[in-house]
Amino acid sequence: QVGVIMGSDSDFSVMKSALVMLKRFDIPYYVTVASAHRTPEKAVQLAAQAREQGVKVLICGAGHAAHLAGVIAAHTTLPVLGVPIDSSALQGMDALLATVQMPPGIPVSTMAIGKSGAQNAGITAAQIIGVADQLVAEKLAAFKKEMADKVARKAASFA
Amino acid sequence: QVGVIMGSDSDFSVMKSALVMLKRFDIPYYVTVASAHRTPEKAVQLAAQAREQGVKVLICGAGHAAHLAGVIAAHTTLPVLGVPIDSSALQGMDALLATVQMPPGIPVSTMAIGKSGAQNAGITAAQIIGVADQLVAEKLAAFKKEMADKVARKAASFA
Amino acid sequence: QVGVIMGSDSDFSVMKSALVMLKRFDIPYYVTVASAHRTPEKAVQLAAQAREQGVKVLICGAGHAAHLAGVIAAHTTLPVLGVPIDSSALQGMDALLATVQMPPGIPVSTMAIGKSGAQNAGITAAQIIGVADQLVAEKLAAFKKEMADKVARKAASFA
Amino acid sequence: QVGVIMGSDSDFSVMKSALVMLKRFDIPYYVTVASAHRTPEKAVQLAAQAREQGVKVLICGAGHAAHLAGVIAAHTTLPVLGVPIDSSALQGMDALLATVQMPPGIPVSTMAIGKSGAQNAGITAAQIIGVADQLVAEKLAAFKKEMADKVARKAASFA
Amino acid sequence: QVGVIMGSDSDFSVMKSALVMLKRFDIPYYVTVASAHRTPEKAVQLAAQAREQGVKVLICGAGHAAHLAGVIAAHTTLPVLGVPIDSSALQGMDALLATVQMPPGIPVSTMAIGKSGAQNAGITAAQIIGVADQLVAEKLAAFKKEMADKVARKAASFA
Amino acid sequence: QVGVIMGSDSDFSVMKSALVMLKRFDIPYYVTVASAHRTPEKAVQLAAQAREQGVKVLICGAGHAAHLAGVIAAHTTLPVLGVPIDSSALQGMDALLATVQMPPGIPVSTMAIGKSGAQNAGITAAQIIGVADQLVAEKLAAFKKEMADKVARKAASFA
Amino acid sequence: QVGVIMGSDSDFSVMKSALVMLKRFDIPYYVTVASAHRTPEKAVQLAAQAREQGVKVLICGAGHAAHLAGVIAAHTTLPVLGVPIDSSALQGMDALLATVQMPPGIPVSTMAIGKSGAQNAGITAAQIIGVADQLVAEKLAAFKKEMADKVARKAASFA
Amino acid sequence: QVGVIMGSDSDFSVMKSALVMLKRFDIPYYVTVASAHRTPEKAVQLAAQAREQGVKVLICGAGHAAHLAGVIAAHTTLPVLGVPIDSSALQGMDALLATVQMPPGIPVSTMAIGKSGAQNAGITAAQIIGVADQLVAEKLAAFKKEMADKVARKAASFA
Repeated sequence: QVGVIMGSDSDFSVMKSALVMLKRFDIPYYVTVASAHRTPEKAVQLAAQAREQGVKVLICGAGHAAHLAGVIAAHTTLPVLGVPIDSSALQGMDALLATVQMPPGIPVSTMAIGKSGAQNAGITAAQIIGVADQLVAEKLAAFKKEMADKVARKAASFA
Repeated sequence: QVGVIMGSDSDFSVMKSALVMLKRFDIPYYVTVASAHRTPEKAVQLAAQAREQGVKVLICGAGHAAHLAGVIAAHTTLPVLGVPIDSSALQGMDALLATVQMPPGIPVSTMAIGKSGAQNAGITAAQIIGVADQLVAEKLAAFKKEMADKVARKAASFA
Repeated sequence: QVGVIMGSDSDFSVMKSALVMLKRFDIPYYVTVASAHRTPEKAVQLAAQAREQGVKVLICGAGHAAHLAGVIAAHTTLPVLGVPIDSSALQGMDALLATVQMPPGIPVSTMAIGKSGAQNAGITAAQIIGVADQLVAEKLAAFKKEMADKVARKAASFA
Repeated sequence: QVGVIMGSDSDFSVMKSALVMLKRFDIPYYVTVASAHRTPEKAVQLAAQAREQGVKVLICGAGHAAHLAGVIAAHTTLPVLGVPIDSSALQGMDALLATVQMPPGIPVSTMAIGKSGAQNAGITAAQIIGVADQLVAEKLAAFKKEMADKVARKAASFA
Repeated sequence: QVGVIMGSDSDFSVMKSALVMLKRFDIPYYVTVASAHRTPEKAVQLAAQAREQGVKVLICGAGHAAHLAGVIAAHTTLPVLGVPIDSSALQGMDALLATVQMPPGIPVSTMAIGKSGAQNAGITAAQIIGVADQLVAEKLAAFKKEMADKVARKAASFA
Repeated sequence: QVGVIMGSDSDFSVMKSALVMLKRFDIPYYVTVASAHRTPEKAVQLAAQAREQGVKVLICGAGHAAHLAGVIAAHTTLPVLGVPIDSSALQGMDALLATVQMPPGIPVSTMAIGKSGAQNAGITAAQIIGVADQLVAEKLAAFKKEMADKVARKAASFA
Repeated sequence: QVGVIMGSDSDFSVMKSALVMLKRFDIPYYVTVASAHRTPEKAVQLAAQAREQGVKVLICGAGHAAHLAGVIAAHTTLPVLGVPIDSSALQGMDALLATVQMPPGIPVSTMAIGKSGAQNAGITAAQIIGVADQLVAEKLAAFKKEMADKVARKAASFA
Repeated sequence: QVGVIMGSDSDFSVMKSALVMLKRFDIPYYVTVASAHRTPEKAVQLAAQAREQGVKVLICGAGHAAHLAGVIAAHTTLPVLGVPIDSSALQGMDALLATVQMPPGIPVSTMAIGKSGAQNAGITAAQIIGVADQLVAEKLAAFKKEMADKVARKAASFA
């Protein structure tokens, strides 16, 4: 139901945070590598075939001048989530601006830079699926409660 | 099906670009003003009641230290789209970072700064609804084709 | 008299610099964890009850899109001090802008990023209490003199 | 009770937003011009004499490499509020960093850049005075309610 | 010999500065509109066919998250020149980083933001053609001399 | 055929990535050190003599306020490629802006900051030579295919 | 005694603020246009001959990737003052970094961006000359007093 | 003849690069610690007495919101050189802007961030003294030649 595409296999250490979340919500996914620049045909193909393959959300993680999410978004009408990765000298500011500042017409839903963003992409994919899928929605509510409980326990440790 | 929340009524000139898109895809919406800081209870209430009211996506536009989308996201498991608005001296960089750099656990799907982002938020809401709604998906495909045709016509004018 | 709230327990290594200062001026405080996004109700409650509990100043430390101080400020008329923490890829620039660029009506008194800011938040809390409390004012004057003496001793070591 | 100091008379168009708030809360103030660089002795004198003159809070507005608030803070143990003003080519980013990034020991409570920050400085001064002054605290609560009502009316105009 | 591709027809006011230079050096060119996101197939086609059509250099101008030059570069081994255009709220910093920070393997030769960059793209195209074409090289030398003479005349007007 | 000039010998660890690429395409090169500021005469000489010496492209790598590429470009009509190097406190943002923001008339084709940019400069030099040299063009096409194959193999490892 | 060099005649509107100061202190100067990139030989000549011509300080104003001051500094051992000019899309941040971030060995004394910096360059030239020239030193002291008096008069207008 | 003032003794590891240069040119200096904020009176005194003590140039190094050079410049008509130090989370960008963006009337000659800047401050002080002191001017010329020779030797090692 969710396709997770990385611009480079070196992005996996960041993007696996998305996979942890997808597993947490029992959402099936595939993960692959496709570069907007080195294998553009594959990227296009992944995007163009996604809907008929039953994919509901595409998550794209890339660094530098991160064009991957934009290229994917150009070839699908499914929601595309972009995770900027800080793999260049500029701490991910380049990847953030290259992902979020999409021109009107072709949106990319952009997450925070790095692991926080990858984890949130997994949650957002669940939220999108949970719009129509009551079971996933309930799992999201339970997750939210767990997060709150965890913070409460930590707060208690300071009391 | 879509709630559009602005942090200030002065954000309307930007956020109406989202409404144009929602109308374009025949998606019902409400639009209101709720400030994360001046009317936090109302913001919380809008978020907390959204799912049972049949809302599927929440779009939040705000400037300055834009907390609105984050506060809304804290109180719902629906997808929340954030539009950073350039209403301060820093050209929207403050609103962008305050919207996109959400900590792990509470995602906000962030769009480009300003009108481009507002328009894209409307399209993203349609994409999310279109995951399960075939009719909206078809309208999105038609819209994509129209955009391409428009660019092609403009290209022709340079030939 | 002072409430110190952290967005995450991982912020403690920074925020303890505030506690050192509060102890230095013999100002009672509590320290707790409350997230603007994961436990928003607790954050609201801490803010809303602060004044009747005798709290005079609230210090909030958070990283990423740091909304904590703003959410606290939305629910109290006490002075709220914000400490931006550099826990994301952007070295605290995101936390700084998300804390300082508050819209008109709901101020957050923002300190420097990181430990310098946490220490200064403790001093500022003392300064605010010292407006009406002569004893604290005298301790602040003594502290200022000690700092000057320490610099003088270091200067002497270069002579 | 509040001293409002501007680095240049050209800052008045921004800083008058602070005065409007101080009047709103019936807090007496003086306003003057003193430059950290052109009239440093006067700036020092204003700071050094403030407490014995009954001043409770000092508000400093300056642009460029805004040193005024820091210089004032160096000579008093009263709370000092800094308002960065965007009067240079860098849109106030220089004034923001020069005001907020104070080293440990000498805090400046920094507000947003420009008019929003000036208004918030006036409110913060009232909050600090309201810690001990019940009447001011009540006026702050009323002001908060008015802001909420104003947003509610605007929200109603979109319904 | 040179293909000039704009991401939007609104970029023409900037990109025509490149055309002026190409005319100056008597280099034939075509100019067209092709969006990396709205007409990706056309962009790919322009790139893929360029070499066999006798194109020697491709100039791409785009704003926002400017992916056009990168997408073109992904589909050709010809030199690709990128001109970042300041059409968003961020003054072209987004377009600059999205154009210049290309990952290893797929270069884009990036020019300055805006008209200066467009003009320089035209000159660079001539320089590349001039590597093998002596006539163009001579025209470049003459142009360089003219620029120097023009500065000298202006210097004289201050003497 | 290609001159590789470094502003400092400490830049070699970055710039050797360019040499690897030039070797990959069997393009002869020389590598030297010449500083725009410490040995300006040598820099000028390298630029002024390049064309008659049969050099076709000049690659310049420098950090800090990186003037080297601009100074070289001022004295030649050959294409000049600039590689910004992150050797200062500002992560290469200073070198990037000092290299890319060339005024109209004197272009520098700017690459990404650091090793990615150095590698891409080597490829770009090959692309420029490949405009007229069919053999190099074929090597570039083969290199592009290899990159794609490498990504495909990595993608397969995730399947 | 002072040479004022502009990278372009369009910089005169900014740089004339330096001339006003030089006149104020009765310091003879010449003003000319010389581009680091378009007329590098002239720039080099101005620098190389300055000392024997009796020039004591060189002031250089330039925008974009402002290399002028650095190129001048490379060819003289006189003090070189750099004024970054905001003539590009990036508000002078490019000119500032290209001027101030000089590598070790070849300093440029950098002023603020724009007119403030030009005026301060004029004053700094006077300060440098005033190290050995008592008359100029006295004029500087008088100027400092006048500035203070002017601020005092403005302060009085608010009393 | 040169006063070297550090805002904190922890700045010595950076500022000693200035001392190495001053020794290189046989220029007498003192080095001390004085904080614009913790020992403002001492800072003022150092500045005010400098000229009559025979000091010709003041070098000031500071980090964070670096006000030291500005405060010194406010109390002297001698040339003041500022070295921004990267001792905060923002890599010295805060210290750079707080040092260089001085308002009109009170200049600070700003060097690069960190050790490069400290070294260049030492050279600049020599250049200023060398305006009137022929012996120092000759040493500067010799130093320039040595730098060139060193680069030439390094270039030779690559041949």
